[in-house]
Amino acid sequence: VAGDAVVEVPVASMLVSPAIAEEGKAEGYALGPEVRSQAVSVPAPSLSDQRSDLDRLLEAADAEPHCAIPPQVLREARFSVTLVWVAESLVRVLPVTQPPPLLGAAFDIGTTTVVGTLFDLRSGRQLAVESRLNPQSVHGADVLSRLSFAAQENGRAVLQREMVACLSEIIFCLLREAGAGRQDLYEVVAVGNQVMTHLLLGVSPDAIGRSPFAPAFGTPFTVPLSEIGLPGWPHGRLYVVPGVAGYVGADIVAGLVATRLRDVRRPQLFIDLGTNGEVVLCRDGKLYGCAAAAGPAFEGAEITCGMRATAGAIDYVRIGEDLEVSTIRGSPPLGLCGSGLLDATAELVRHGVVGSAGRFGDERESARLPARLAARLAFDDQPYFLLAEGDGGARVMLTQGDVRQLQLAKGAVRAAAEVLMERAGVGVGDLWRVVLAGAFGSFLNKDSALAVGLLPPMERDKVQSVGNVAGAGAGLVLISSEARRAALTVARQVEYVELSGSAEFEAAFVKAMAFPAVGKGGM
Amino acid sequence: VAGDAVVEVPVASMLVSPAIAEEGKAEGYALGPEVRSQAVSVPAPSLSDQRSDLDRLLEAADAEPHCAIPPQVLREARFSVTLVWVAESLVRVLPVTQPPPLLGAAFDIGTTTVVGTLFDLRSGRQLAVESRLNPQSVHGADVLSRLSFAAQENGRAVLQREMVACLSEIIFCLLREAGAGRQDLYEVVAVGNQVMTHLLLGVSPDAIGRSPFAPAFGTPFTVPLSEIGLPGWPHGRLYVVPGVAGYVGADIVAGLVATRLRDVRRPQLFIDLGTNGEVVLCRDGKLYGCAAAAGPAFEGAEITCGMRATAGAIDYVRIGEDLEVSTIRGSPPLGLCGSGLLDATAELVRHGVVGSAGRFGDERESARLPARLAARLAFDDQPYFLLAEGDGGARVMLTQGDVRQLQLAKGAVRAAAEVLMERAGVGVGDLWRVVLAGAFGSFLNKDSALAVGLLPPMERDKVQSVGNVAGAGAGLVLISSEARRAALTVARQVEYVELSGSAEFEAAFVKAMAFPAVGKGGM
Repeated sequence: VAGDAVVEVPVASMLVSPAIAEEGKAEGYALGPEVRSQAVSVPAPSLSDQRSDLDRLLEAADAEPHCAIPPQVLREARFSVTLVWVAESLVRVLPVTQPPPLLGAAFDIGTTTVVGTLFDLRSGRQLAVESRLNPQSVHGADVLSRLSFAAQENGRAVLQREMVACLSEIIFCLLREAGAGRQDLYEVVAVGNQVMTHLLLGVSPDAIGRSPFAPAFGTPFTVPLSEIGLPGWPHGRLYVVPGVAGYVGADIVAGLVATRLRDVRRPQLFIDLGTNGEVVLCRDGKLYGCAAAAGPAFEGAEITCGMRATAGAIDYVRIGEDLEVSTIRGSPPLGLCGSGLLDATAELVRHGVVGSAGRFGDERESARLPARLAARLAFDDQPYFLLAEGDGGARVMLTQGDVRQLQLAKGAVRAAAEVLMERAGVGVGDLWRVVLAGAFGSFLNKDSALAVGLLPPMERDKVQSVGNVAGAGAGLVLISSEARRAALTVARQVEYVELSGSAEFEAAFVKAMAFPAVGKGGM
Repeated sequence: VAGDAVVEVPVASMLVSPAIAEEGKAEGYALGPEVRSQAVSVPAPSLSDQRSDLDRLLEAADAEPHCAIPPQVLREARFSVTLVWVAESLVRVLPVTQPPPLLGAAFDIGTTTVVGTLFDLRSGRQLAVESRLNPQSVHGADVLSRLSFAAQENGRAVLQREMVACLSEIIFCLLREAGAGRQDLYEVVAVGNQVMTHLLLGVSPDAIGRSPFAPAFGTPFTVPLSEIGLPGWPHGRLYVVPGVAGYVGADIVAGLVATRLRDVRRPQLFIDLGTNGEVVLCRDGKLYGCAAAAGPAFEGAEITCGMRATAGAIDYVRIGEDLEVSTIRGSPPLGLCGSGLLDATAELVRHGVVGSAGRFGDERESARLPARLAARLAFDDQPYFLLAEGDGGARVMLTQGDVRQLQLAKGAVRAAAEVLMERAGVGVGDLWRVVLAGAFGSFLNKDSALAVGLLPPMERDKVQSVGNVAGAGAGLVLISSEARRAALTVARQVEYVELSGSAEFEAAFVKAMAFPAVGKGGM
């Protein structure tokens, strides 16, 4: 029965565009978790059948003996029981005949945020979602600061403990929210970048931090939850989705699974924008991947008035007759987040006030701008534009240096895409869609991304923001064996292209730093 | 290399008689433990090979990824490491290139005594032996008293804790004796009767205690030592040898493996004498097994002056011109153990003082006996013979009731053998050998066993006492995959014959209670 159902996840509509359906591809993965239950009636023993309870049970279940557990409850249940299997292992014998709850949790372990989702494994439905700030954030915001903390004495143990405590709290809350018992959780699937998955398993991530950046493991991992310090869920096991390379982790693999990139014939780009920009190109089912150090600009860090995308961050800027800005939750403006930085820069480029090389134009050019913005001032010896002031908010400015930071970030990502396209022999015109994954990819203004040349020049409609596909992919891996197999295939299939020390990348990067001429896509 | 060596165990010479060698059978099992080590040199990662450490390691080891552990030590060892495998699982990566110690322990868990033997798994050699009184003995001497204690509130948990503590102490002492580290123990093999193995795993043995006596499990079990409450040996796993039925356990299976009963064409009997007498008949490689409730006489219990076979127990009685007795360790006589009871009875039967029905003869018949014994006295309204008195020892007597107890015990075992021989169509003359297993089987006087009709009438040389073959078999299962497979085959192959409620057995039992006419083997 379960095999025929199709997985429903809230992101499904985002994942599969009508065009994919037109290409004749399935719109979802078949529901089919590794966890299943089976009601069996076991014949009672008799003097003519003195075989052990377990032998009679396995025969009734038509199963091979395999790491089986002695069925203590068989007799109190008068030989009518329900078995719970995880893959080929019998993990529980229940003294009931009605189907027991079968629950699993999917985790997207981000460097900043940890999100857990509880699923009913029978129906594939989400039951609850909980998120927490990654508690490791106190040691630094990005992956590099975690790597350096992990290298300190006891650092790795501290980071693992923090992560495990966070998962523990989230699982506890998820089950409470769903009114479920701790016995009913059978599987936890986790995705994250390689540093996060290494630390979760207590494995040293040191080697990821230096050339040649090889991770300790790339295979999928299955361990009892108790083995990583989570003894509260006796039947639970942890499945860590495999990654590709040191900087292309399980989160990207999960995203590729969720977007079914490999199942579409026509060339596509998958881009996850962050401090580290992961780019995957797919052509004819072949995958090419790389990671570019974009720096923190997309996350609003190391920007003069930069801030994370939280309440009060300017996330939209439009320069028409007047200056138009909006902030997250409509709060008084406090700073500029990644999408605001992108918008502001794109608008200044559009008005010809910021040139192709990224330099602020002179006063004559600034005169085209709305009066409020036109005052070109200097701050810390840099020219800047004032985006917001007063009204209970702070003075929010955009400096020449901020635009440089954006150039570095967008240049790295664009150059990464160009290197892959060159490698795969895919021209800009061949691209059928560009998938933007992750939080920043959801909130940015596609027009701005095209205007500054972050993306290759193409029709706006080809650019899809798909949201947190890493989390969605983790959920799919949890509830669908088909998706789990797809993750393994994808992880093994991606041809990883190292950009570090690559002359080809350096050349592309220098070109990609430039802004396109107004009205064109650049390069 | 290991595959060609042949297992040397001290019992080997006892196990394989020249006649078996004449039949062309191998004299031992090939050495081949489940645990093995492998030195590998792993290529270092480079920008052109950025695969994970684990992927490169598994490729160098020519192994499939399978529940593998991330190799933390790979880098500190500069990529030259030694892997330890247990079956198909990689359990340890050592930063050395010389072969590490590989140790295992074999346990024979008796109702009374627990014996552990430490083996070097490379050479198959015994390194140390330790034994302890089974700490569960405080709740009662035999299996039935353990069953009833286990049924009490918390009883099962108490019994498991006691057993696990005993194993823990023995393992600790074994490793200390061998100067080995706790990291070097990889496998523990355990045998015992079903109640012992159930309690060791914390599984309820209740069902074994009542008809139809089906155990909870009959399959072999593998669990990490930590899972049964032994966390001190991080790489150790427990392998519990499978049993046949409620009263034919892993100890008997191990004994059958050690004696290679199944590998000899000609009909043989395997008898383990104790409170419970297990009898296995082998014919043409087919095995028939049963268990007879012999009562406690063989163990010296419920005998007027009965005692266990320890210092001071009369273990040998000979009535010639004079009465001749000897005691264990030559201590002043304190009581009568099983072999002494058997001897004394056989001698009285031989002199015609005890008749076929087991009744003590009158004074005329007693007059034939040495003067010292001739005084037929009465104790507790029963006639008795005085076997020893004074000399710093106690008065040790043999009463009419004691002889009755022996009749019940030997009658049950003999009847069990007759039922199996009838079932398999084997006549007494067809028997090629009778193997007596266990402590009592080692110490009894074969002539006496034949004289009282405990064994079918046959030449004395066909009776072999083989000692603790259960423990030897556990050792073989530990160091030889061939023996481990043999145990599984034997456990599945034995056709179990239930004697409880069997009219055939009742009839044979009544006949077998009688003593043979003097000079004959009886029945």
